[in-house]
Amino acid sequence: MTGRIEVRSVQGLLFVLSGPSGVGKGSVCRELLARYPRLNLSVSVTTRAPRPGEVDGLNYYFRSQAEFEAMLRDGQLLEWARVYGHNYGTPRLPVQEILAGGGDVLLEIDIQGALKVREALPESILIFIAPPSEDAILQRLTGRGSEGPGAIAARMACLGDEMRVLARYDYAVINDTVHRAVEKVAAIICAEHCRAGRYRGWNAGNG
Amino acid sequence: MTGRIEVRSVQGLLFVLSGPSGVGKGSVCRELLARYPRLNLSVSVTTRAPRPGEVDGLNYYFRSQAEFEAMLRDGQLLEWARVYGHNYGTPRLPVQEILAGGGDVLLEIDIQGALKVREALPESILIFIAPPSEDAILQRLTGRGSEGPGAIAARMACLGDEMRVLARYDYAVINDTVHRAVEKVAAIICAEHCRAGRYRGWNAGNG
Repeated sequence: MTGRIEVRSVQGLLFVLSGPSGVGKGSVCRELLARYPRLNLSVSVTTRAPRPGEVDGLNYYFRSQAEFEAMLRDGQLLEWARVYGHNYGTPRLPVQEILAGGGDVLLEIDIQGALKVREALPESILIFIAPPSEDAILQRLTGRGSEGPGAIAARMACLGDEMRVLARYDYAVINDTVHRAVEKVAAIICAEHCRAGRYRGWNAGNG
Repeated sequence: MTGRIEVRSVQGLLFVLSGPSGVGKGSVCRELLARYPRLNLSVSVTTRAPRPGEVDGLNYYFRSQAEFEAMLRDGQLLEWARVYGHNYGTPRLPVQEILAGGGDVLLEIDIQGALKVREALPESILIFIAPPSEDAILQRLTGRGSEGPGAIAARMACLGDEMRVLARYDYAVINDTVHRAVEKVAAIICAEHCRAGRYRGWNAGNG
């Protein structure tokens, strides 16, 4: 007897990591990738200027407004959004190629972008990184030192609305410590690979 | 500012571990409980005789046919099924009490029982423990030494039908090694606790 379970669909899974500004989704994403190199990070395109230390093609593709609009016109973006005066977008082709090849893709994007990815690719898995409290967000935004009090106040004013979007996500992970948040996201990735729908069924043996 | 995320529903989660005869769900269950003592194992009632080493009230409540029928009449069973000539059932009250108190419950039952629990409690989470192959099942049933060739042949004949039920489960975990299977079930438990629907929402601060 040689019956075997037909294990998996060939298609990879798309995990979208998102959450309010200042929640620390970048840190969660970095530690996750360091521990699970099998995940493929999708690099976004943005029109905003690089922050100190950010590298083109690694953190973002930094593009001019005109270049961004050309990509948009040519249908090269899976989603895009204008956030605090800058454009952010996800190049469509690399994501589709990795998924088709059986690899998992990790997207780290803002809330507007995440909901658009869900529209474009309904099978995507949305993970909301949530702050344990308002204070935690305020401390992180202040500590980052890259924005003035006005910009920070604007972000804080949006927090309530951003938190309400949580209900449209699949999962919510509270970023109380980066380590615990990464553990939970890793568990979600593992669990989604175990979904019964991904198994093609049982190949009965003929022996 | 003191806004906080309202973390969780008070209700615990019910995980149903199930799968074909001889797949090793008992081993997975035991290691899972040893590593995650927070899980509460639901003890089943059965009319079958104890196997060597099995203890009443720990492995099963061993009851006579008459006692079992009395429980059934009194509505004390969440589900029950007749499998290979014996009755198995799940006492309703302990499960409901643990869930209401916020604890998670683990049920290890056969496939018929699992589907009845899903009917009785639609919010239960069904995990199918699958064999990597027919050979793996046959080896385990033979090695257990508790059943003759006829009984084993009867179980093997049911395997194809049992595997088709996988599609009605939430998750499928291949028991290639107990350790890996336990890791995956643990990830599923963690992920289910992160479901966005379990978060009550954001309590905006008034500071």
